Amino acid sequence: MPEVDRGSPIRVTVWGENVHEQRDASVKEIYPDGMHTAIANGIRANLGDRVVVRTATLQEPEHGLTEEVLAETDVLTWWGHAAHGEVADEVVDRVHREVLAGMGILVLHSGHLSKIFRRLMGTTCVLDWRSADDRELVWTVAPHHPITQGVPNPIIIPKQEMYGEYFDIPAPDELIFISSFSGGEVFRSGCTYRRGHGKVFYFSPGDQEYPVYHHPDVLKVISNGVLWAAPTGERSLPKVSRRPTGWYETGETLSAADPRLTGGE
Amino acid sequence: MPEVDRGSPIRVTVWGENVHEQRDASVKEIYPDGMHTAIANGIRANLGDRVVVRTATLQEPEHGLTEEVLAETDVLTWWGHAAHGEVADEVVDRVHREVLAGMGILVLHSGHLSKIFRRLMGTTCVLDWRSADDRELVWTVAPHHPITQGVPNPIIIPKQEMYGEYFDIPAPDELIFISSFSGGEVFRSGCTYRRGHGKVFYFSPGDQEYPVYHHPDVLKVISNGVLWAAPTGERSLPKVSRRPTGWYETGETLSAADPRLTGGE
Amino acid sequence: MPEVDRGSPIRVTVWGENVHEQRDASVKEIYPDGMHTAIANGIRANLGDRVVVRTATLQEPEHGLTEEVLAETDVLTWWGHAAHGEVADEVVDRVHREVLAGMGILVLHSGHLSKIFRRLMGTTCVLDWRSADDRELVWTVAPHHPITQGVPNPIIIPKQEMYGEYFDIPAPDELIFISSFSGGEVFRSGCTYRRGHGKVFYFSPGDQEYPVYHHPDVLKVISNGVLWAAPTGERSLPKVSRRPTGWYETGETLSAADPRLTGGE
Amino acid sequence: MPEVDRGSPIRVTVWGENVHEQRDASVKEIYPDGMHTAIANGIRANLGDRVVVRTATLQEPEHGLTEEVLAETDVLTWWGHAAHGEVADEVVDRVHREVLAGMGILVLHSGHLSKIFRRLMGTTCVLDWRSADDRELVWTVAPHHPITQGVPNPIIIPKQEMYGEYFDIPAPDELIFISSFSGGEVFRSGCTYRRGHGKVFYFSPGDQEYPVYHHPDVLKVISNGVLWAAPTGERSLPKVSRRPTGWYETGETLSAADPRLTGGE
Repeated sequence: MPEVDRGSPIRVTVWGENVHEQRDASVKEIYPDGMHTAIANGIRANLGDRVVVRTATLQEPEHGLTEEVLAETDVLTWWGHAAHGEVADEVVDRVHREVLAGMGILVLHSGHLSKIFRRLMGTTCVLDWRSADDRELVWTVAPHHPITQGVPNPIIIPKQEMYGEYFDIPAPDELIFISSFSGGEVFRSGCTYRRGHGKVFYFSPGDQEYPVYHHPDVLKVISNGVLWAAPTGERSLPKVSRRPTGWYETGETLSAADPRLTGGE
Repeated sequence: MPEVDRGSPIRVTVWGENVHEQRDASVKEIYPDGMHTAIANGIRANLGDRVVVRTATLQEPEHGLTEEVLAETDVLTWWGHAAHGEVADEVVDRVHREVLAGMGILVLHSGHLSKIFRRLMGTTCVLDWRSADDRELVWTVAPHHPITQGVPNPIIIPKQEMYGEYFDIPAPDELIFISSFSGGEVFRSGCTYRRGHGKVFYFSPGDQEYPVYHHPDVLKVISNGVLWAAPTGERSLPKVSRRPTGWYETGETLSAADPRLTGGE
Repeated sequence: MPEVDRGSPIRVTVWGENVHEQRDASVKEIYPDGMHTAIANGIRANLGDRVVVRTATLQEPEHGLTEEVLAETDVLTWWGHAAHGEVADEVVDRVHREVLAGMGILVLHSGHLSKIFRRLMGTTCVLDWRSADDRELVWTVAPHHPITQGVPNPIIIPKQEMYGEYFDIPAPDELIFISSFSGGEVFRSGCTYRRGHGKVFYFSPGDQEYPVYHHPDVLKVISNGVLWAAPTGERSLPKVSRRPTGWYETGETLSAADPRLTGGE
Repeated sequence: MPEVDRGSPIRVTVWGENVHEQRDASVKEIYPDGMHTAIANGIRANLGDRVVVRTATLQEPEHGLTEEVLAETDVLTWWGHAAHGEVADEVVDRVHREVLAGMGILVLHSGHLSKIFRRLMGTTCVLDWRSADDRELVWTVAPHHPITQGVPNPIIIPKQEMYGEYFDIPAPDELIFISSFSGGEVFRSGCTYRRGHGKVFYFSPGDQEYPVYHHPDVLKVISNGVLWAAPTGERSLPKVSRRPTGWYETGETLSAADPRLTGGE
């Protein structure tokens, strides 16, 4: 099957916390322009003119995620670690609302403890970890899923932080990847969810201390994730509707002062 | 198969918002002691000495859901409607944490828009509705699930508020019941989820304007839900662990000042 | 989002049992060229040059489903009712193998009791039914799924056979539609599954005694289902592999006389 | 929570192919009375008077699985490897029917290629493998599921055959365990499904060349699986029902010569 073309490019915003890159020499050496730049470049290299990619970081006003930026974003990618607590609740509310309205989101690596991921999951999202140069193997358990197309099985990541089970997430809608580490641990490293009208893809490989976001297979997965998470319908927040009997035949609508009608978020 | 016995009773707390019952004559007539009392009595009648049941309401200090009460609660049931916004965030945080640690929760009817349910689901939880004396039929789609044992198929509820799709929830782990209404709408009226170590059962039949919580089949389902949601293991919040290589063989543990170690909620 | 284009058309084979159309005057009047022709025309009308559509029927040699035809089929649709038992096991084996290798399949209406659907599901696939001019409403519970794009919610089918729960199928990977009937029954009328490398979509609306396959919304769903079920990777049957240690780094392969190596189907 | 008691014991039949034990000295040394005896003893040791356990083998008339034996079996466990093809189709049909009617089944290790497991799954059930003394670690991803209670995380199996992904099964209803092997592969080693009215648990640890069925944690999981899979309702095969309008209120029933009424298996 040939690859899919779209009539207009997918608008991607790559969000980076951008703290380690500023303060840790070891990270700056691997990612001189920040992890967000490495990720953005990888998406561009894989998807070419099927995407337009911008970046945004914690340090910008409203973390670079204004109403306007999000309105022009089809898929957002999220990487954070050292400063989850510094992300403004107002911005988290906004991102949450846009995901529920249809914007796709990819949550990467230590983003598992971000406010937005915990908000979408409803769980603690904790896990086991170790930073000791484990080799990670990323195995495909959904070989014909769009996210795994063109990806070797397994992906071999020579050095990586270990993330291990138990990973406290809801049962994924689709389990895509399972990783093993040389220390013997396993991890559900690729998981998809639908929340509201939006699609969520969590993908764990990637750490500030290792050059994982220069790994071509990792960038291929992220790029596939962008294609998968892009919305297929109009963006709109699910809402409460008061329905008269037979509305689907009469076309009649109702409004009401019921407290639930202020619903949605 | 004979019914299951447990060595000690399941401790149930039935939470009621208790607002309509105080202010609306029509509701007071149906539920003179409150919906929470009707629900509590139904659970007692069905489960006898397999449970000890108490009630708690919005108007009590800390809404009756203190640390002590929750520590002694195996399964919490939740009904709210007019005053979701008045539930203190601190109490919601506490209930959320206890569910993730293993406490079961049953969310009933208009509780779909409660803070705690939205928190657990991560979505808007909105739906379509109509209050026009629809007949509701509650159909079993999981005939051998513990929650449906001894329940007629369908349950017939002569007059009910209509709840219709689209119901904005994550795909249930298990879909138990689907309802139809005389106006033709359908609704996923019985859904289970696991969140953290806890079990969640959403069950929609029940409204303040109709005597649904006097309906024996509805009370039977709620009672089955209590049995199903009761924890099977020790209660503990999932937590981050830093793991040295080979910890499962050496028994070695590590502590660290990593920000993730403040994880959990 | 604009519609998706593919580099080459999806090859669709519409299979019809074609028994009622030959023997029952009432059916012949509604479907003078057979239901398979109505379905094929509907797919062509919706998808234009994105598809090439052929039909095949029970009465042809090998029921029109030779090795060659299946090798050239990306998506097969299946309608049967009166003659499930007359479908040759050899052809069922062949279709089963091709689905597991990646061919998409849409099973329609009374195809729920076909050999191929039961084979893929592993269950009885029985249901409740009534032929009494019920009105069917088909409600979307997955509003942003590709299969529901451009489909009104609900679809209104003025007269239809009733299919009701309990429908004995495995829990669907994705529940897409739920129907209600004027008699009050409900039915999981749109369900997706993955089996091997192939995608399966069961869609229940459609009966020989009603003009359901002339209904534009029903044909739209079937057409969307064709797009969704089309394979995204190379077609190949999953197979047993004996793996030497480190094969993913060395590229080494092994063969063996182990009985499992005769695996696959 | 104290352990669950039942009013009458669960009747377990442990089925063993019993071929390797007869012909291979290496296997006979590990399992002088057969793997089925080791498994049966392990269940008895864990569950005491909550179970009555019998064994049955391929070599017995009807493989020891007569109508009478199955009628008296609440949970069947299945181990086969060298002689899947010798299991009579008539017996497979019978076991399949009883599972769909509510009998629980545990499929163990190389039973993944048995006729009965493939029948229940609808897929090839193939996987990757290697027999090279890998260490297997069995990790819990469902910490509060009944099957994982009292089981260490991870289970450490010093020497084992490697089973690796891609394992061609339907997405499990619940994923319970994921294994890693010292060679780096991963495997979905504990999976649950519902098929008809019956529960299915696949658990991969166990091989004729290793003393895995003497491992206390493996026997504990199998014993927990027996408790989990035991039926909770009356056993009956799902069946087609023709329903008159309003049958749920009138109690009216219909019979008909419709070909579907011969449904079920």
